[in-house]
Amino acid sequence: MSKLLPPDDLIAQLARAGREAQRALGRMSHDAKAQALRVAAAALRKAEAEVLAANAEDLAAGEASGLSPAMLDRLMLDSWRLAAIADAVENVADLADPVGQEIERSTRPNGLVLSRVRVPVGLIGIIYESRPNVTADAAALCVASGNAVLLRGGSEAVRSNRAIHAALVRGLTAAGIPAAAVQLVPTQDRAAVGAMLTAAGLIDMIVPRGGKSLVARVQADARVPVLAHLDGINHTYIHAAADPAKAIQIAINAKLRRTGVCGAMETLLLDAQFPAAPAVVAALLDSGCELRGDARARALDPRIGPASAEDWDTEYLDSVLSVAVVDGLDAALAHIAAHGSQHTEAIVSEDETAVERFLSEVDSAIVMANASTQFADGGEFGLGAEIGIATGRLHARGPVALEGLTTYKWLVRGTGQIRP
Amino acid sequence: MSKLLPPDDLIAQLARAGREAQRALGRMSHDAKAQALRVAAAALRKAEAEVLAANAEDLAAGEASGLSPAMLDRLMLDSWRLAAIADAVENVADLADPVGQEIERSTRPNGLVLSRVRVPVGLIGIIYESRPNVTADAAALCVASGNAVLLRGGSEAVRSNRAIHAALVRGLTAAGIPAAAVQLVPTQDRAAVGAMLTAAGLIDMIVPRGGKSLVARVQADARVPVLAHLDGINHTYIHAAADPAKAIQIAINAKLRRTGVCGAMETLLLDAQFPAAPAVVAALLDSGCELRGDARARALDPRIGPASAEDWDTEYLDSVLSVAVVDGLDAALAHIAAHGSQHTEAIVSEDETAVERFLSEVDSAIVMANASTQFADGGEFGLGAEIGIATGRLHARGPVALEGLTTYKWLVRGTGQIRP
Repeated sequence: MSKLLPPDDLIAQLARAGREAQRALGRMSHDAKAQALRVAAAALRKAEAEVLAANAEDLAAGEASGLSPAMLDRLMLDSWRLAAIADAVENVADLADPVGQEIERSTRPNGLVLSRVRVPVGLIGIIYESRPNVTADAAALCVASGNAVLLRGGSEAVRSNRAIHAALVRGLTAAGIPAAAVQLVPTQDRAAVGAMLTAAGLIDMIVPRGGKSLVARVQADARVPVLAHLDGINHTYIHAAADPAKAIQIAINAKLRRTGVCGAMETLLLDAQFPAAPAVVAALLDSGCELRGDARARALDPRIGPASAEDWDTEYLDSVLSVAVVDGLDAALAHIAAHGSQHTEAIVSEDETAVERFLSEVDSAIVMANASTQFADGGEFGLGAEIGIATGRLHARGPVALEGLTTYKWLVRGTGQIRP
Repeated sequence: MSKLLPPDDLIAQLARAGREAQRALGRMSHDAKAQALRVAAAALRKAEAEVLAANAEDLAAGEASGLSPAMLDRLMLDSWRLAAIADAVENVADLADPVGQEIERSTRPNGLVLSRVRVPVGLIGIIYESRPNVTADAAALCVASGNAVLLRGGSEAVRSNRAIHAALVRGLTAAGIPAAAVQLVPTQDRAAVGAMLTAAGLIDMIVPRGGKSLVARVQADARVPVLAHLDGINHTYIHAAADPAKAIQIAINAKLRRTGVCGAMETLLLDAQFPAAPAVVAALLDSGCELRGDARARALDPRIGPASAEDWDTEYLDSVLSVAVVDGLDAALAHIAAHGSQHTEAIVSEDETAVERFLSEVDSAIVMANASTQFADGGEFGLGAEIGIATGRLHARGPVALEGLTTYKWLVRGTGQIRP
């Protein structure tokens, strides 16, 4: 029985089965994969009773063990949420398939025809917390891009995840995808997570989905490449030449539309030459946002409290915002370089030169002009879905969807060429 | 003095200086970087006397410490080799600059204009052995792609590397590039290598250049992403429908043109239905190659010795080749999946269907049809140069040149959009 295997052996066994399944999956056409995802979505809808029953058990156990209302809400499924999960699987089926796409092609003087084509990464490990929708979302994105996936969800959602996984696999296998293409780690032993993180050569990439402590642990311990972001300490810089109405609208939206998302603004940089700075801070304060400022920011409004040194490096994920007054674009760039997390930064300005310098010089995964940082999202970027947002520098940055789950290989077509 | 710092602190200090310099370098135009590389090449030519004197000292020390003739040859510089190094720097200056290239652009229904543009990776660490040309080659590729570089060469070449580095930096700084953009680790303490490998967040990518033991150590110990290949166990599969003349030519070239390069063929797979198999093995044997075969291969020619189980997983880098007879394309694919190192594989066949299946299903960085595996090289691919060949799956695969030393960021240009 696989549950009796030590975690390293268990993960190795699952990974080998996943890699084997991926070889078949990677050869399937877009239509076959899309059709399988539609069958899986239908199977998920059909399994509503068993998924909701499993979820009710998770919720009861979560209440008994004292999970917070926020945690219970993340865990909770109802007919509407389950239908949305199935819809999302169908939406992924409709996305353009990057696998097989030719990135470039050239012919060498000796007649060799070179091309680079996109291929699946291989086996993706997903380590996540209490949201059972990740089970279906991640599985769909991986299958659509020809990758096998090894899912390891949180203990709180174990029954829900098993029910969702079972339904998906029923659908996928009925449509000809090997069951091992989408596997759920069958134990909640935490050592299995460690085994996944160190399975270099067996798992090609790990995507953690969850809170900062999960991501930090994964980044610290992983020997497998990790696609993730730890922080979203996102800045909005209101330049001297900003349009005041846009500045107010964007600041309110960037901070307060949803405070708990990774694209939320966490620091507002106000140019000392921006005349409407008091109106921006007043609008935020009037909307119920707590502001913590440096001395010059506090001079703008008596309701602004003092910022400590740590505030500039804090992702609040709440109705709290740090505010600094800066002397021009260079000072804003320096503040961002010192305190940013390379996630998303924005400038508000009608000055094209300032905008283009900001876009060029800020070294973040996403750099915006005259828009709310809350647009940092794969769906908003037109990617259809996202497996996550990456702030690392290699492979893929920003919202990562199907293309970020592929790599490429070089094809060389010759007619007998040998190298002189 | 920096030499008195503990290795971790020394590397952190160098890395911070490199990152700071990179911010300036990353903003420089292609023309400015190209011009600086030309000035650096000229400075290197001008420093011939001091570089060759330093190299003579390295050679004398190497002879005294008993370096092998092959090692001494790798270390040796003369006027001709130094001129070739300077030429290579100039060639890199002439390459197209990927930085700033727009990968894609789209406009969202809400009017946001999204684009992805290439940006430098940041700070690249190069860890290499006795070839002093790597000092100049790697520095040129990094500077051309807007990256700072931290070089750590082998002890045998320390005087040569210092002289080459000093000349390059004289040229680069004269042309306005900060000296810290190209730094040579000023100690041969091996702990400095360990400090580089664990400098996550300070060094963005490590490229090892050298033998298998160096690469293995770097891959085992690195916490920073590594771009490398450990093995090149490259297969050539001669399909039943191969043209016999091409099969012979390609097999001889793939194995024997240069046996010590990573693109050399190490295993020959002969289809059981290929009629001219005896002629292929005879041509290899007659050219002085030792063949080690399975039972069916040995039946083709009495001069073929027996292959042990390890032979199928061995990169000989010598005039030795393992030979197996396989039953058709699927058996060839299975052999490659079991024993390949995902570097370079080739099929020889006039059957278009077999060729395309091979190209599609072999999961290697480079897959060739009717060509010698010895074409696995950045120069032969038209990349102008290469920082290395990568067999990992993420970021970049195969020959890696300037584009592989870049990543991208998302730019979002709005007119005041907020997210509903």
